[in-house]
Amino acid sequence: MCEHCGNHGNSHEKESVASFTINKDILSKNAEIAAHNREMLDRFGITMINIVGSPGSGKTTLLEKTIPAIKNEIKVAVIEGDVETSNDKERIEKLGIPCYQINTHGACHLEADMVHKALHELCLDESYDLVFVENVGNLICPADFPLGEDFRVVVLSTAEGDDKPEKYPEIFFGSDAVILSKTDLIEHLDFDLEKCRERLLRVNPKAKLIALSAKNGKGIDEWLSWLSWAITKPR
Amino acid sequence: MCEHCGNHGNSHEKESVASFTINKDILSKNAEIAAHNREMLDRFGITMINIVGSPGSGKTTLLEKTIPAIKNEIKVAVIEGDVETSNDKERIEKLGIPCYQINTHGACHLEADMVHKALHELCLDESYDLVFVENVGNLICPADFPLGEDFRVVVLSTAEGDDKPEKYPEIFFGSDAVILSKTDLIEHLDFDLEKCRERLLRVNPKAKLIALSAKNGKGIDEWLSWLSWAITKPR
Repeated sequence: MCEHCGNHGNSHEKESVASFTINKDILSKNAEIAAHNREMLDRFGITMINIVGSPGSGKTTLLEKTIPAIKNEIKVAVIEGDVETSNDKERIEKLGIPCYQINTHGACHLEADMVHKALHELCLDESYDLVFVENVGNLICPADFPLGEDFRVVVLSTAEGDDKPEKYPEIFFGSDAVILSKTDLIEHLDFDLEKCRERLLRVNPKAKLIALSAKNGKGIDEWLSWLSWAITKPR
Repeated sequence: MCEHCGNHGNSHEKESVASFTINKDILSKNAEIAAHNREMLDRFGITMINIVGSPGSGKTTLLEKTIPAIKNEIKVAVIEGDVETSNDKERIEKLGIPCYQINTHGACHLEADMVHKALHELCLDESYDLVFVENVGNLICPADFPLGEDFRVVVLSTAEGDDKPEKYPEIFFGSDAVILSKTDLIEHLDFDLEKCRERLLRVNPKAKLIALSAKNGKGIDEWLSWLSWAITKPR
């Protein structure tokens, strides 16, 4: 018994509590719907890329730089995930491509179920080549919920710091590429690009790191080359 | 039945799924332990401040600027919440004050139970005046889990963008103060301070916005004044 509070419980013996264990049935159901999404996308020959990252890491801005460069060559659509507002959808629609907004109203990640609905509403059509899903701004929870994507891309901004791959390993571990955004700010920050790369490779030796700035355009070509390679992935 | 996939479920009818509804029992149990934490803190005359914000928003840096300015006047301790690593604890301990590290190993927020344990280990002693809890870097999930704090402070970095209060309203709604950090970067960003303030006040008319830069020191005095006011709160 605790001398200060009389607590008999096990809260003094452990840090993790039941709410941290995501119900296995939920993960299993999500995985099942994600597999179904993949099967549908494969049938229509559509590549899906799940873009994750912290709030304000530059996910929408990356799409604003990417879409004008590719939309004349390939048919692309976007699924926007946000807690609230349709600000990002409005930004994407200005680029002249279809966009479907999901508002989670407080929830911290997209689930395969929500993307399944969006795919039906938006672009399940053989004329589409590529769907970007912009996940809810969160560097933790989306890691547990695959959506049926071909690739997961993390956007990490230089302003967030070079230590993030080791502090939030799960989302980096399962990702195919990491976009280090806002490199134009590096000169104003205490950010070490090589340390960031080393930390990322310790967590995920296979991750492709692409450093870029949407502001000055440096690195955008490398990202577009990676994207071009990703779209040609054999099914 | 869906023509593309034969899905009979309700995934075409709704976006929210069961996993988004946090078990009421968990929230209720958390609230109970948070109340108990408050009761203990009140008994010892300790003020607790829960600092929340995105990864890399500047929460630890704020503490690094705050603690040297106050530690000769008041006795302060820090509880550090991180998914992984004890990097932040090491930074705080260099300041010469006690720090307790909680690693959540994948979980996206602190809970009252974890803070309860940390308080016992760290500082339940009448000689302490103030405990900072640095929550896990996440602008969504910590909003649902009060820890027994007297005040919740959100740290939002200018690099995250001026639209965040409306995009992540819940965490701003329930907070007492919002620290707009990294104001030294504003000249390099497309960030409108007045728009950010308006958006914050639409979500939470009572929130105190303090714009500051840990780099050039502007605004730190205003934060320290607010802190000084907060510590004298009648119990």
